[in-house]
Amino acid sequence: MAPAQEQLEGEQIVASNEDGANCIEKSRVTVIGSGNWGSVAAKLIASNTLKLDSFHDEVRMWVYEEVLPSGNKLTNVINETNENVKYLPGIKLGKNVVADPDLENADFLDLVGGDIAVKDATMLVFVTPHQFMDAICKRLVGKIKPDVEAISLIKGMEVKMEGPCMISSLISDQLGINCCVLMGANIANEIAVEKFSEATVGFRENKEVAERWVLLFSSPYFQVTAVQDVEGVELCGTLKNIVAIAAGLVDGLEMGNNTKAAIMRIGLREMRAFSKLMFSSVRDSTFFESCGVADLITTCMGGRNRKVAEAFAKNQGKRSFDELEAELLQGQKLQGVSTAKEVYAVLSNRGWLEMFPLFTTVHEICVGRLPPTAIVEYSEHKPKCCLA
Amino acid sequence: MAPAQEQLEGEQIVASNEDGANCIEKSRVTVIGSGNWGSVAAKLIASNTLKLDSFHDEVRMWVYEEVLPSGNKLTNVINETNENVKYLPGIKLGKNVVADPDLENADFLDLVGGDIAVKDATMLVFVTPHQFMDAICKRLVGKIKPDVEAISLIKGMEVKMEGPCMISSLISDQLGINCCVLMGANIANEIAVEKFSEATVGFRENKEVAERWVLLFSSPYFQVTAVQDVEGVELCGTLKNIVAIAAGLVDGLEMGNNTKAAIMRIGLREMRAFSKLMFSSVRDSTFFESCGVADLITTCMGGRNRKVAEAFAKNQGKRSFDELEAELLQGQKLQGVSTAKEVYAVLSNRGWLEMFPLFTTVHEICVGRLPPTAIVEYSEHKPKCCLA
Repeated sequence: MAPAQEQLEGEQIVASNEDGANCIEKSRVTVIGSGNWGSVAAKLIASNTLKLDSFHDEVRMWVYEEVLPSGNKLTNVINETNENVKYLPGIKLGKNVVADPDLENADFLDLVGGDIAVKDATMLVFVTPHQFMDAICKRLVGKIKPDVEAISLIKGMEVKMEGPCMISSLISDQLGINCCVLMGANIANEIAVEKFSEATVGFRENKEVAERWVLLFSSPYFQVTAVQDVEGVELCGTLKNIVAIAAGLVDGLEMGNNTKAAIMRIGLREMRAFSKLMFSSVRDSTFFESCGVADLITTCMGGRNRKVAEAFAKNQGKRSFDELEAELLQGQKLQGVSTAKEVYAVLSNRGWLEMFPLFTTVHEICVGRLPPTAIVEYSEHKPKCCLA
Repeated sequence: MAPAQEQLEGEQIVASNEDGANCIEKSRVTVIGSGNWGSVAAKLIASNTLKLDSFHDEVRMWVYEEVLPSGNKLTNVINETNENVKYLPGIKLGKNVVADPDLENADFLDLVGGDIAVKDATMLVFVTPHQFMDAICKRLVGKIKPDVEAISLIKGMEVKMEGPCMISSLISDQLGINCCVLMGANIANEIAVEKFSEATVGFRENKEVAERWVLLFSSPYFQVTAVQDVEGVELCGTLKNIVAIAAGLVDGLEMGNNTKAAIMRIGLREMRAFSKLMFSSVRDSTFFESCGVADLITTCMGGRNRKVAEAFAKNQGKRSFDELEAELLQGQKLQGVSTAKEVYAVLSNRGWLEMFPLFTTVHEICVGRLPPTAIVEYSEHKPKCCLA
């Protein structure tokens, strides 16, 4: 694949040439975020930048600094051991991954010399918790190259009354840059040990840029496909969590595989219908990709939303989701309950509740208006208009 | 819903009128087959014929006669106890289900008086093991009404070198009648105890007939949807078994949910691609129905193909599928291995092997040419042409 010509800047056409590539600017990648998934993403990327002539070897990883129980700083330990000992212990990230301190380290953003700061990055990978994105974008304004390309790996966009608030749009709007998304059936710890998996890149218009992201993430054990449907791909990553709540309820009620598969299918139908009502550009075929059906399956078989919902049903709804989340997830957070609430508000506002019996019922169960058993009773009513 | 006018015959316009319906012929339903799923189908149908004026109450169920250990005939016990004590014990079928003896009872086919024989049926439900269908159709030629409507619930069509040999086509061709299909995520024992489930009716042209089948099978716990894609629906029911073998191998290799979801997704893609290459009329949307994604999920989570393939992988392929099938399934038969072989022959014959890496690899593992671990190694290679 040819280097992305459209990313060239006049003063940088002659770039370093240490590995004999043509004198065309190489892409510099910075990963913004260093949790479990962010660390795995850095590992995937770092193995590729070593192989691909059109990328600088070094991958910068922006780390929210923490002092470890040993008294050492997390960034120092990552750079010394080549492991994210806190969020991905036991996995070598690649020696070309360089941890940089957190966003609050304003000096970091202002570094000028050398090629180490975000200001020199040409490709930014966002993989932080979604609630930090607004603040991060505000910090980055004016600090990045104007033609930098971005990709968001962040699941958990919010669905506001006026419609979904896509993380990719937030990045695009606040920073004035193009932003793709990467979603899929991606349990970080399984990919970290190189078990076979897939992912989907969603892009808006520029296919060459999408192919460059595919190149950067792909490996024999991590197959990436690009589709021109950024909203569809991103919505899958959020809406599936509502379906996982429903699947967990079915598990807790011990209804069997048959009912669970039916509920997952109805959930996938509502994901598709909701996405298409929100964005007419959303494609049916996106839901056949890893971000769609595969991520839904993984999430409904083993995810945290499923787990807490199962416990909720087993307790006949007598212990709240908040209580069970605190007990079962050791500080991790559920997305499904809040997403169900947000989607319910949109549906209610637009008079669409009856068209989405599964989404509606999940929310009403979560807030205690309906018993857990309603998940199968209410899903029996077909939507009043044909959504398929 | 109005009675199906197109099914009227001159001499039968004035039919019995015991429940005050209009003097229009009522449909008479015969279920051909009485195994586990056939008995559940009869139960579903029988609860509806009692409620719907346009159907005769009585549902005839054609039973392959057996003498039980007690010395009693199976048909007699079914008619006395209202239970299929052998294939669905503990479940009342409905008092309006009448068991008739097996196909080999030639006298039965020749019965004339009354309304009890298949010759008076206007709707035939086929739900026997598929290997008996050819013989059954031969026996029925000339014994049924020319305008009878049929539906096949039989999974396990064969894929011959010249293409798939659909059971619905066999019925249509041999008997000269229209034939729909009903497929879906249908574990008979779960539906028998009225757990929520769904199914898909595939029809060729006549939507009114399809709607009549939907009416006959639907209940609050069994939601049926009709789609105009008989081949797509029927192929789903067969091809999913190859994918279930792949899913079972992943389970046996302990690759985790992520890999399993990826393999299921790739399998669904190949099911879609193969079906569309075989029949250009096949619709993508069919694979979002219960017969598609939901049946695939159920089969890959708990079915017998998955179970035996898991054992095969755990034994590193050292014990054959035949041996494990005999040990694990107590006389039940695997479909996946033979379907994989049949599909492989078609792909090989047409030069399509590389386009279907998952289907191809499953067969090569089953016959011992590749180790079980190849299921993830080989699936890494994307098909050479875009099938999506």
